[in-house]
Amino acid sequence: MTTVILAGIDLGGTKIAVAIVEEASGRVLARRQAPTDSHEGPDAVLQRMAALVHTACGDASIAVTELAAVGLGVPGVYDLATGRTHFLPNLAGAWRDVPAGPVLRQALGRPVWLINDARAFVLAETLFGAGRGAHTVVGFTLGTGVGGGIAIGGRLFWGIDGTAGEIGHLTMDPDGPLCTCGNRGCLETYASGVAITAQAVQRLADAPDSLLLHLAGGAAERVTPALVGQAAAAGDAVAQAILAHVTKYLGAGVANMVTTLSPDCVILGGSVANLGEQLLAPVRASVRARCRAIPVDRVRIVQAQLGVDAGAIGAALWAGQQVNQ
Amino acid sequence: MTTVILAGIDLGGTKIAVAIVEEASGRVLARRQAPTDSHEGPDAVLQRMAALVHTACGDASIAVTELAAVGLGVPGVYDLATGRTHFLPNLAGAWRDVPAGPVLRQALGRPVWLINDARAFVLAETLFGAGRGAHTVVGFTLGTGVGGGIAIGGRLFWGIDGTAGEIGHLTMDPDGPLCTCGNRGCLETYASGVAITAQAVQRLADAPDSLLLHLAGGAAERVTPALVGQAAAAGDAVAQAILAHVTKYLGAGVANMVTTLSPDCVILGGSVANLGEQLLAPVRASVRARCRAIPVDRVRIVQAQLGVDAGAIGAALWAGQQVNQ
Repeated sequence: MTTVILAGIDLGGTKIAVAIVEEASGRVLARRQAPTDSHEGPDAVLQRMAALVHTACGDASIAVTELAAVGLGVPGVYDLATGRTHFLPNLAGAWRDVPAGPVLRQALGRPVWLINDARAFVLAETLFGAGRGAHTVVGFTLGTGVGGGIAIGGRLFWGIDGTAGEIGHLTMDPDGPLCTCGNRGCLETYASGVAITAQAVQRLADAPDSLLLHLAGGAAERVTPALVGQAAAAGDAVAQAILAHVTKYLGAGVANMVTTLSPDCVILGGSVANLGEQLLAPVRASVRARCRAIPVDRVRIVQAQLGVDAGAIGAALWAGQQVNQ
Repeated sequence: MTTVILAGIDLGGTKIAVAIVEEASGRVLARRQAPTDSHEGPDAVLQRMAALVHTACGDASIAVTELAAVGLGVPGVYDLATGRTHFLPNLAGAWRDVPAGPVLRQALGRPVWLINDARAFVLAETLFGAGRGAHTVVGFTLGTGVGGGIAIGGRLFWGIDGTAGEIGHLTMDPDGPLCTCGNRGCLETYASGVAITAQAVQRLADAPDSLLLHLAGGAAERVTPALVGQAAAAGDAVAQAILAHVTKYLGAGVANMVTTLSPDCVILGGSVANLGEQLLAPVRASVRARCRAIPVDRVRIVQAQLGVDAGAIGAALWAGQQVNQ
């Protein structure tokens, strides 16, 4: 059996990550990173991505022509059939109708497949990370925003139009805060990094002596999930209240996915998930309390394992699945 | 090709419905009903079900031995492998650990398979009702309680333990009303027949001149979904407020299933769904407002088509799928 080698590109708002991946093992043979610098425009960014793939192939001592396929994970909406982006809100100009797939295919001479970055994360974690061996996996990416995806039997579940698993936009309270998507009460408005900072700004206005404010250098708008975790562990009441608020809604969101899909594994990734047990323990408790009719002991609720490589690995594996279809 | 004939039994809290069904067409060849009279105990009820199957087979001019299989839809939790019921809360004694499958198999001499009644409804509507031709279907049964199910590619989706699709217990507000399941804010606490009557009792205490109260003969506890629909259509403010409350949460619940699964069809059945467009129109509007990133025009949100037969038909089709597996 020949070894199938794939390249995956994770296009983010601030950086591009490339991984050269062995399909059968998920092993990363080489990785490269560069700033996105999206203000330079799509053409420059696409050429930078192509160059990174070339360099990473060199690191792995393979020729670009040896790649079975290339996957491109994008932070937004795209068209699978044409490889064009529809809307990547975190990139300058939002990449409306950019032929990213065709341009990369031209530059690399290999087949290129696009995928949503959160779905790429879920595929990688399902096949080679925290979800190994599970049949039904639900993944949440808790970063600047909240994304997600669903994998069943080792393959992503897409629904009829590729939007299945957009679970950062589950309504957790019909009258909740306005979300950037236009809906009210989305999970993203409670459990994203941005939501945590917004909570801190609001709560610290009345708590000038808070350890959390001190850790953030006196600037509430600089509060990160990591600082909230640090202050909460040290007993800071504001940080503990923020964590309780986040896990109340995140716990209900995870419970809703357990109720809907009865998965054997729920994976939390992204910067907010780096809170580890401070996040996981109350989320698990919420699922136990809310899903009483369901044997929730069979559901593993765990942190992601592949770290920052997950997006690029998942994009690579996705391209491999498309080629083998 | 021989015609495969199945029997389906829908075991409800008040009545038993039996249908003799042609597998290939979903056509009902004969149907019979009887009161459940669950106070007589499981043995009497099981013998009554077996007798109904015999009678219905006679109506259809076939012998019981010609049945390929028998499906039993139960309102609660059961074990698929053993055919024993775990917990049917609406039946006297709750049928804890009753060997319903083995007893019926003994009485009828045919293989018997159990299924949850809401999942049976979804399977029937998917294959031969409102969901015909759809790939991914989500169904809600809006009756005394709220049940549901998910079908993908013409088969029910079960998750790892058979509880997938228990979407009457989606948390719609983490601080919402206490549900009989022990959770707070379940969809069932907003959109069931019981919830509608409870809303009426609460709101009519301050509205003695309401048309709705008049239609209910002055007794708020006799308000049904149908009376709410009738009064709302005539301009009654209390009835309109009740409908708005129901559809606010039901709309968000349906939107959450669209966001999660990107289905091509959502089916609403049960007594509350008989409100028809009074329910469907605001639910569709809610989905459009809440799922802005999703092309919701591709999702049909419709009323069930098979009426009271759906449960028995679905149980029969389920048994057929089990035999052919």
